[in-house]
Amino acid sequence: MNTELQDYSHKRFNILTGEWVLVSPHRAKRPWQGQEETPSTEKRPTHDESCYLCAGNTRISGDVNPNYTGPFVFTNDFAALQKDSPDFNFNDGLFKAESEKGICRVICFSPDHSKSLAEMSVPNIQKVVDTWIKEYKNLGNNEGINYVQIFENKGAVMGCSNPHPHGQIWSQSSLPNEVQKKDTQQKNYFTENKSSLLETYIEEELNKDERIIFKNDDFVVFVPFWAIWPFEAMIAPINQQSSISEMNANQQKNYAEAISVLTKAYDKLFNCSFPYSSGIHQAPTNNENNDHWHWHMSFYPPLLRSATVKKFMVGYEMFGSPQRDITAEGAASRIKNCI
Amino acid sequence: MNTELQDYSHKRFNILTGEWVLVSPHRAKRPWQGQEETPSTEKRPTHDESCYLCAGNTRISGDVNPNYTGPFVFTNDFAALQKDSPDFNFNDGLFKAESEKGICRVICFSPDHSKSLAEMSVPNIQKVVDTWIKEYKNLGNNEGINYVQIFENKGAVMGCSNPHPHGQIWSQSSLPNEVQKKDTQQKNYFTENKSSLLETYIEEELNKDERIIFKNDDFVVFVPFWAIWPFEAMIAPINQQSSISEMNANQQKNYAEAISVLTKAYDKLFNCSFPYSSGIHQAPTNNENNDHWHWHMSFYPPLLRSATVKKFMVGYEMFGSPQRDITAEGAASRIKNCI
Ligand SMILES: O=P(O)(O)O[C@H]1O[C@H](CO)[C@@H](O)[C@H](O)[C@H]1O
Ligand SMILES: O=P(O)(O)O[C@H]1O[C@H](CO)[C@@H](O)[C@H](O)[C@H]1O
Repeated sequence: MNTELQDYSHKRFNILTGEWVLVSPHRAKRPWQGQEETPSTEKRPTHDESCYLCAGNTRISGDVNPNYTGPFVFTNDFAALQKDSPDFNFNDGLFKAESEKGICRVICFSPDHSKSLAEMSVPNIQKVVDTWIKEYKNLGNNEGINYVQIFENKGAVMGCSNPHPHGQIWSQSSLPNEVQKKDTQQKNYFTENKSSLLETYIEEELNKDERIIFKNDDFVVFVPFWAIWPFEAMIAPINQQSSISEMNANQQKNYAEAISVLTKAYDKLFNCSFPYSSGIHQAPTNNENNDHWHWHMSFYPPLLRSATVKKFMVGYEMFGSPQRDITAEGAASRIKNCI
Repeated sequence: MNTELQDYSHKRFNILTGEWVLVSPHRAKRPWQGQEETPSTEKRPTHDESCYLCAGNTRISGDVNPNYTGPFVFTNDFAALQKDSPDFNFNDGLFKAESEKGICRVICFSPDHSKSLAEMSVPNIQKVVDTWIKEYKNLGNNEGINYVQIFENKGAVMGCSNPHPHGQIWSQSSLPNEVQKKDTQQKNYFTENKSSLLETYIEEELNKDERIIFKNDDFVVFVPFWAIWPFEAMIAPINQQSSISEMNANQQKNYAEAISVLTKAYDKLFNCSFPYSSGIHQAPTNNENNDHWHWHMSFYPPLLRSATVKKFMVGYEMFGSPQRDITAEGAASRIKNCI
């Protein structure tokens, strides 16, 4: 391992976005006197009368949830994007706006109010994976839906307003900023090298074995060289696939296992229900050639030192570049130790 | 005012970064059952024995603060960037890193532990402005310092670990991501139009008068058309200047007044010491031609509905694009009402 990268401030390049992250390894020693978070350690009941996501309960919209037994998906009652809003174009010199349509869905991972992905069995996680695949295909088939963003906000500190284990899917007509960047970077590499950028990278990661957390036959879990969040990690298929819809049944099981291993390790790291936002970046559903896409799932957890002290992405990070205090290598080995 | 922009989801283009923001005006109605912040309403003493930023006190490093009477600047005891770290280049295929040197400074706005910028007099804010100008020049004159980022994290919710009113200055060899984007966009426009992008834009903003909060002879305070944060605002000189070092004494006073008006209005909005990160984007100190730069100061406040409910930039925002629920026009008029 290169020791300069462990000792001195430097920037690392993110091959997927084309942007840099500032790394300050020596800075982890600074004392913390700022805000403390409240870790989530409460035990929840398996069914909560007052939860609007539990089976059989009534939502704020008045709709009644069915008595579902596996994952349950419905259209968001307060969707940020709507399917039937009018088309318009506002092009007034330097003032530029465009209408954006979409469909926003909520996915309850299971009827069990008490169990996060970390606490669910691999077969039950596989049902969630299966639901993601169906939603990706169905939403993507809608006229005018060109991208499907699957994500989860876990924990109050990540803006999650209901503890019932659930994720969201926002699908829309244009490619969001982050997806656009990854589309460009992957396309440029693919055009030049006739191979997947991420596949080539993962091969090297496996050789180096400095940031690998876990591996099975089809998937690898690792901390990317350019990770931003202290304990950021990525799950990706070892061999290129452009979207989750290309997995066979066995790969779906191995993907579910990778999710299970990582989320369990996270919970062990600071002995709490580990908060994060996770998301899947994959091929747009725009009917163009997307062979350059290699899908992957990223986890962005906010915690830095303990269950109560998070990393704030504020001043310098908002106006300059993202900045981290511990190295990707150090983080990977700490997560790996929790498996 | 275009009514579609007030009623239906759309995306708006940021001319300074070249990126988009998703706006969902109809979504402000959704109920909030998530995390509540603790607003800062405590009265602080003018001097706090235990504060490591107060005059005469000892810092964690063992250094003793002088009995300063105006703004006080020192080099950060736990700097993210260091001046004397070695030069190195790590170029290993898809793994790319570079050493990054810099100088990080802390600036106490005044010896008074109890008063934020909103509570300071205009002449005292002007002393802060004067200090920023000196630091920008001095740091920028250092060999290998090509960019000087001035910023403030205000409030515990913004990761500020000491309530003594202070800001920071991180200066470094390369242009951070956000600065790079603005450099490119402004340069492209300037090359094509032989005029400042932001000056042209501000002229139009003043004509439209839909997002203006305040104006004096030299400065305008407004919510940019593409604002991300609910109550984001910008202060900019009406006529192009590439950096704060170009202001004359009267302009410095008018800049201080603009800061005073905006921060006071913020505090009134939700009746609390309004948290935010603010930052100045201006010409790099790289000795290149920076005539395309038009400096500006932005405020990114996290609060959305009240002193306790903030906007979370999480799942969709991290993996997709920034998203906002209230329009820039609505936000501007609410801030303006607080003047
Ligand atoms: O330097 P401070 O105030 O200790 O730290 C704060 O500001 C820094 C610069 O924006 C951030 O990197 C930290 O996450 C934040 O807590
Ligand atoms: O949709 P929710 O869970 O109510 O809201 C949460 O996730 C959204 C998508 O990331 C964000 O825009 C909100 O700020 C956040 O509070």
